[in-house]
Amino acid sequence: MQAIQNFLLSSTPILWLNNALKQQDILLIDHALCEKKAASSAVSLMHRYPERDALLKKMSRLAREELKHFEMVLEILRHRGIAYKNIIPSGYVQAMRSHIRAHQPARLVDELIIGAIIEARSCERFSALIPHLDRELAYFYSSLLASESRHFNDYLTLARMYANEDIHSRIQLFTELESSYIQGEDSVFRFHSGYVQGSMESY
Amino acid sequence: MQAIQNFLLSSTPILWLNNALKQQDILLIDHALCEKKAASSAVSLMHRYPERDALLKKMSRLAREELKHFEMVLEILRHRGIAYKNIIPSGYVQAMRSHIRAHQPARLVDELIIGAIIEARSCERFSALIPHLDRELAYFYSSLLASESRHFNDYLTLARMYANEDIHSRIQLFTELESSYIQGEDSVFRFHSGYVQGSMESY
Repeated sequence: MQAIQNFLLSSTPILWLNNALKQQDILLIDHALCEKKAASSAVSLMHRYPERDALLKKMSRLAREELKHFEMVLEILRHRGIAYKNIIPSGYVQAMRSHIRAHQPARLVDELIIGAIIEARSCERFSALIPHLDRELAYFYSSLLASESRHFNDYLTLARMYANEDIHSRIQLFTELESSYIQGEDSVFRFHSGYVQGSMESY
Repeated sequence: MQAIQNFLLSSTPILWLNNALKQQDILLIDHALCEKKAASSAVSLMHRYPERDALLKKMSRLAREELKHFEMVLEILRHRGIAYKNIIPSGYVQAMRSHIRAHQPARLVDELIIGAIIEARSCERFSALIPHLDRELAYFYSSLLASESRHFNDYLTLARMYANEDIHSRIQLFTELESSYIQGEDSVFRFHSGYVQGSMESY
């Protein structure tokens, strides 16, 4: 967890935590969507980089774990009578993806760094939320920390493995973009979003 | 296995078996690709039908199992020194997909029936191949039969669950299209393809 806090340039703002605790239904629906999207992105990488053996192996395993988490969040939604549905995402991922370089292997390296950042932020947010959640959710989120942290390491390992360059400056660029997004005000509250002021537009 | 043979309108032709045994490298590469595509299609259904609770649960589990099989085929490819890569598919899936109805829930029902047919054919082909394969592959393909057969049942159960109609005539239509494709000559040899005559174009 210390490695993740050092990697990210800022902690989750209290304003976002307040949003999250007031809208736990959206938090959980969006969490389920994030797990599904993480699996989907991993399979997309597998499709686009069939020659990268370590990527295939790590991404396939990661996708399986994300799907297992998806099923666990669905179960919690069902117990709580919250209807799962698709909701529009915040601009969080796009704020980083718009800076991905077009040529290879730079494109792949940038995609993997963004993957690492998203996993790192998930981990940091679970950790920030846990002390404020009910027992069931706190226990569930604690149980996810180890695998999310492993996923962060997997993405970073692959980025270093496939880069023809020192990736420090790319990590710096993307963690700055990310931190700036996370610190800012957002139009929607999501698991990965800035904070929302005043009355929240839910969906 | 008897249920699957009754469901499909024809058995794998000997000519295809001859193709497969002569090109086990392509068989294995395409098998890996099929497992990945099956996972990807399941996640796509989850994305497009978030309100279908049983579908989410069954497709997420199915995608995890297909990814696990993908990893197992990759391992066999690695042991045998065969390079995994993307290869163009045969026209098998498209021959059925082009008949999917546009309106809902008919579209979903048709997609699920096609899913059931693909799983059924996989199962039938594993079974037809097993007596002719080396010990390692024969053992591996035997180990896949139970889950592929469960996936066939999952798709069919969901198709019946979500249909507002007796789906018998749709099953008849798609199994006829499928059987006709499988019985025919094809331009490429794939796990799901017709047979190829003469010298085979591999990729």
